[in-house]
Amino acid sequence: MSLIKVGLVGIGAQMQENLLPSLLQMQDIRIVAACDSDLERARRIHRFISDIPVHDNVPDMLNEVQLDAVIMAGPPQLHFEMGLLAMGKGVNVFVEKPPCATLEELETLIDAANRSEVVSGVGMNFKFARPVRQLREMTQVDEFGETLHIQLNHYANKPRAPLWGLDSTLRSFLLAQAIHTIDLAITFGDGELRRVQSSVQRHEDALIVKADMAFSSGATASLLAGTSFPYFEFDMKLVSSSSTLVELDNLWNITLHEPEHATRPTGAAKRWRGAWQPGPLDSGYERSGYHGELHQFFQAIREHRRFEADFASLLPTYRVIEEICSADAVAQGLQNAHSRIRTGIESLSL
Amino acid sequence: MSLIKVGLVGIGAQMQENLLPSLLQMQDIRIVAACDSDLERARRIHRFISDIPVHDNVPDMLNEVQLDAVIMAGPPQLHFEMGLLAMGKGVNVFVEKPPCATLEELETLIDAANRSEVVSGVGMNFKFARPVRQLREMTQVDEFGETLHIQLNHYANKPRAPLWGLDSTLRSFLLAQAIHTIDLAITFGDGELRRVQSSVQRHEDALIVKADMAFSSGATASLLAGTSFPYFEFDMKLVSSSSTLVELDNLWNITLHEPEHATRPTGAAKRWRGAWQPGPLDSGYERSGYHGELHQFFQAIREHRRFEADFASLLPTYRVIEEICSADAVAQGLQNAHSRIRTGIESLSL
Amino acid sequence: MSLIKVGLVGIGAQMQENLLPSLLQMQDIRIVAACDSDLERARRIHRFISDIPVHDNVPDMLNEVQLDAVIMAGPPQLHFEMGLLAMGKGVNVFVEKPPCATLEELETLIDAANRSEVVSGVGMNFKFARPVRQLREMTQVDEFGETLHIQLNHYANKPRAPLWGLDSTLRSFLLAQAIHTIDLAITFGDGELRRVQSSVQRHEDALIVKADMAFSSGATASLLAGTSFPYFEFDMKLVSSSSTLVELDNLWNITLHEPEHATRPTGAAKRWRGAWQPGPLDSGYERSGYHGELHQFFQAIREHRRFEADFASLLPTYRVIEEICSADAVAQGLQNAHSRIRTGIESLSL
Amino acid sequence: MSLIKVGLVGIGAQMQENLLPSLLQMQDIRIVAACDSDLERARRIHRFISDIPVHDNVPDMLNEVQLDAVIMAGPPQLHFEMGLLAMGKGVNVFVEKPPCATLEELETLIDAANRSEVVSGVGMNFKFARPVRQLREMTQVDEFGETLHIQLNHYANKPRAPLWGLDSTLRSFLLAQAIHTIDLAITFGDGELRRVQSSVQRHEDALIVKADMAFSSGATASLLAGTSFPYFEFDMKLVSSSSTLVELDNLWNITLHEPEHATRPTGAAKRWRGAWQPGPLDSGYERSGYHGELHQFFQAIREHRRFEADFASLLPTYRVIEEICSADAVAQGLQNAHSRIRTGIESLSL
Repeated sequence: MSLIKVGLVGIGAQMQENLLPSLLQMQDIRIVAACDSDLERARRIHRFISDIPVHDNVPDMLNEVQLDAVIMAGPPQLHFEMGLLAMGKGVNVFVEKPPCATLEELETLIDAANRSEVVSGVGMNFKFARPVRQLREMTQVDEFGETLHIQLNHYANKPRAPLWGLDSTLRSFLLAQAIHTIDLAITFGDGELRRVQSSVQRHEDALIVKADMAFSSGATASLLAGTSFPYFEFDMKLVSSSSTLVELDNLWNITLHEPEHATRPTGAAKRWRGAWQPGPLDSGYERSGYHGELHQFFQAIREHRRFEADFASLLPTYRVIEEICSADAVAQGLQNAHSRIRTGIESLSL
Repeated sequence: MSLIKVGLVGIGAQMQENLLPSLLQMQDIRIVAACDSDLERARRIHRFISDIPVHDNVPDMLNEVQLDAVIMAGPPQLHFEMGLLAMGKGVNVFVEKPPCATLEELETLIDAANRSEVVSGVGMNFKFARPVRQLREMTQVDEFGETLHIQLNHYANKPRAPLWGLDSTLRSFLLAQAIHTIDLAITFGDGELRRVQSSVQRHEDALIVKADMAFSSGATASLLAGTSFPYFEFDMKLVSSSSTLVELDNLWNITLHEPEHATRPTGAAKRWRGAWQPGPLDSGYERSGYHGELHQFFQAIREHRRFEADFASLLPTYRVIEEICSADAVAQGLQNAHSRIRTGIESLSL
Repeated sequence: MSLIKVGLVGIGAQMQENLLPSLLQMQDIRIVAACDSDLERARRIHRFISDIPVHDNVPDMLNEVQLDAVIMAGPPQLHFEMGLLAMGKGVNVFVEKPPCATLEELETLIDAANRSEVVSGVGMNFKFARPVRQLREMTQVDEFGETLHIQLNHYANKPRAPLWGLDSTLRSFLLAQAIHTIDLAITFGDGELRRVQSSVQRHEDALIVKADMAFSSGATASLLAGTSFPYFEFDMKLVSSSSTLVELDNLWNITLHEPEHATRPTGAAKRWRGAWQPGPLDSGYERSGYHGELHQFFQAIREHRRFEADFASLLPTYRVIEEICSADAVAQGLQNAHSRIRTGIESLSL
Repeated sequence: MSLIKVGLVGIGAQMQENLLPSLLQMQDIRIVAACDSDLERARRIHRFISDIPVHDNVPDMLNEVQLDAVIMAGPPQLHFEMGLLAMGKGVNVFVEKPPCATLEELETLIDAANRSEVVSGVGMNFKFARPVRQLREMTQVDEFGETLHIQLNHYANKPRAPLWGLDSTLRSFLLAQAIHTIDLAITFGDGELRRVQSSVQRHEDALIVKADMAFSSGATASLLAGTSFPYFEFDMKLVSSSSTLVELDNLWNITLHEPEHATRPTGAAKRWRGAWQPGPLDSGYERSGYHGELHQFFQAIREHRRFEADFASLLPTYRVIEEICSADAVAQGLQNAHSRIRTGIESLSL
């Protein structure tokens, strides 16, 4: 198998902790260049690979090094602008999430990818996490039945202020965090997204976001997310037409509740359920999805086909994000209107 | 303390498994009569208490035996009609849920209780369950902060058809099952119920009900309930303004996640949480709330005050039930309308 | 079914919290007398049952009231002496554990029970706890195979000083606490007890006791128990010749690990296991075994047969207790001897 | 920091799944050669690193490539012989466990390491696993008190036959599996190993091994291990003089039980405990210890000091292994003797 030559862009925490280690242990991939606006940071690559060129800007790297793909982990503006540049030069592009700040920008990225016929990819690692894969396999067998409802709880404690120079903490949270769980809702929802209803609750600088989605398959999904939680955790439940309820706890344990559940010594018996957990020595980047997302991106390059988590795959996810933001703007506008009115007419009730 | 003389009505499963055993082991309570339309069933009381009168109708029992209170466990029609009768005679009344089929009937019961100045009560055992009490205490201390959101998941597998001669499976489910979790939402929501939004999903004879509630306190609650689950289970989460997340699993275990959590050997450390579980020999009817509901009902009688779970306390719960039913009727009407239109104009999109 | 007339002896915490409530809700049982050296305590029965005689000594109660059985909950000396007295009068006897302080006394009780042909019983509630019953059923089916090993962990934080006027904290702990888990080892060990090996570790006034047992069936058991733990909890594991591992956590949850475990959607798959937990509204005294022990004692009386947890059933348990105590006495003697020698010859190594 | 040049020996499953990926993502380490008796397997390294020499025998590799360290993952005979060879040439040596088959061989390795003044290391990843590190830190603070007892359960389902040409399944199991948990017992036992008592139970080709250890610190440890379990899992409990009980489940979750445990909203309250679990995206080789063992081995090389898991550190572990094997040989001899006698005199009881 021929080697894929990769250039890295943005050697910050996410690159160092997850993408770079995953890449280093991947077969038939070679990191051949690294780029960071801070050259000192770019040079950290030399602790792993000697003597590859480093750059402090992407255009130079693209001009001077022959690359099959760039892997970027920076702010969405970088992903957007340098993604366009790289695709324009026929280079395959994988960016950490979020790829860009708005639906409009995403459409631009999709167009560019289509025009340049490169493979694009976004770091949607939850989608490729091993237990999520297990759930996807499970939900596709006849015995599971049709997925009726997906409940996603996404607990976070940040951001409490806008990121990346955006003017909205809500949008920042959706792009930085909830993007994963919205994407899971859409992945398991199956069919076209038909309807989104959402509300945002604020307490000081913390948010609670609720969103309900409905799909053409008949399935529905509900998301509880926000930044008023103590730390990042995540859980997911699926209920199907066969009265099966599957729970995923934090990319760790899966519990499957079904009307009849059997063990060898008990036979089918009441209140038994199936529980799965990873082996004690589970290691590496498969469980968390960092391996899977990159591995499948490279496979798509090799096989000249779309990657499952390409820019286009995020269209419904960004639609949900835009819907949540605009519904919230309307609600805030209304509330401000009411506030203004109230100053005059105190007795008006909501 | 003077004895309270109690008459039992409806000696079926719920009475035999939960109410009767709780009553038998309660101090200063005496069961002095039992009534069931099936006299054979009424006579089962004699296996526990010798020589008390049994009846096959409530009016006879009320006429022939001097009672301080009746405890009923039957269909809502019985609770409603015989509840009115007993209250009319100045007898305190405790009924299993649901007390009646509609909000209108509930208002009639409330009026009657007010007029006759008796103590009324409904078997809302979840509200009195020991771990729910623990949660209530926890949420009332300053350190917890304000409750921002309550998530309730209520898994059931029945009813799949209307109960008690009603014409709606949805209403039957709400009255038989979800009444508990709606009541918990209202209990923890704090303040007045301001808004309810709901949707009902159907698959064959199974339902999934989602309801969002908002309260004058600023808190919100969301309920996922239904009959498409494998068996009855329940979980509840509360998130507060101090970024504390508390989970209750099935009236068993409580997990409290807080930004800083300490053990003596570790000090405050990351990803530690507090977990509570009942002792190994936990027994009786306190944990499940059957003791608490009855005990506090009798205390209210003794102290001539309202009982926390009296008829009036269920007003907002029944309002939610009526809202869910009428929103569903509208949605079904619309869908039928669309179906009719579609027959003619196939291209109409939703 | 004819009524069984019961007299209660010792109206302390254990009687009030577990035995009395279980008895009050039991069919065809009538409490007809109560006895406590503190008459005020004996009179507490009147809050549940009006107008039954109370006594401050057992001989009077036995002389004045016609009883089918006495239920005692007091110190072992009371159980022993009043048990002998009651059996001598042909009254069936159920005592809380421990029935007596030594193996020798137990043999006296067994002789007396045999001579008087009454049914005897001890409050070994763990043995009758519902999840333990589930385990016993499970281990008796062919699919489970033969039980190879039983591991029992019994965590306690008391007694830290001798109880009941005994001179040994170790014996007090074994009689008050470990008696349950030793009895479970023997129950699941199957066959005759062949060998016991034990050691006792002391830290200040706390104990850690380890005991290994071997049975004629080929099964072995190991017990870790003691008073240096934070609070009372309990867990139990069984491993069988079919490579099945069953865990019981605190009379709550059962987890069954087997080489192949299937759910409907996954088929047999790796690292899946079966998990059981009680229903959310589990109530009463079945799970904790207080109902079962009494119910089966009364059944044995009705059917004129031995009760599973009669005095004779505890013979191997008391043999283990005596073995642990005497091995410890030898070890302490040795250690004292060594201590004495060491004063003279410091270099002697163990 | 100067680069450490590493040669790999034995490119099988353990190397490919755990050691190689850990090495590839380690700073300032360069893999410069690979060796496997099957050259095809050695060449797999080229999928990760282009153009490094491969060999089919260790002497050639050592002669032709300048190495700072060899990392070996093969049978114990290879580790032993090629370890001696490499150390003789002044090359630092890290071998997967087991480093050799007997205590005698271990002593030879230790001598050689001392003579050649190289750093030696064994792949005791459990010892370096992150949650085990957390436990070690926890047990070293004053608030924890002294460790009194360590309980280790090591569930395995193989080997069911001798490995590596050895003649004993028991020794193979101890070297391949239980070596980790024996080493943990010794790590947490603290002080010198004073006493080992063990027994081995056989059922068909499966083993159950129990071993009790006592340490000069006063701590004791008990190990339950064997091959009659459904799959590999592991748990560990520590109890201390402050009545603290810590449980580690499978290198995943830690639960700490202490007499008083507080959350902010509840204050110190009954039956609360602390629970820790890894973050949802926990990735890489830290949690499983593969990173830690290698990282610290290389640090020791850089700092010219002993590595914590060097050959000498395994002396007490091998003493335990030898004790278990020889106690079993004695027991089997006895049993065989009894069997022979029994053929003649059937009534002889054990």
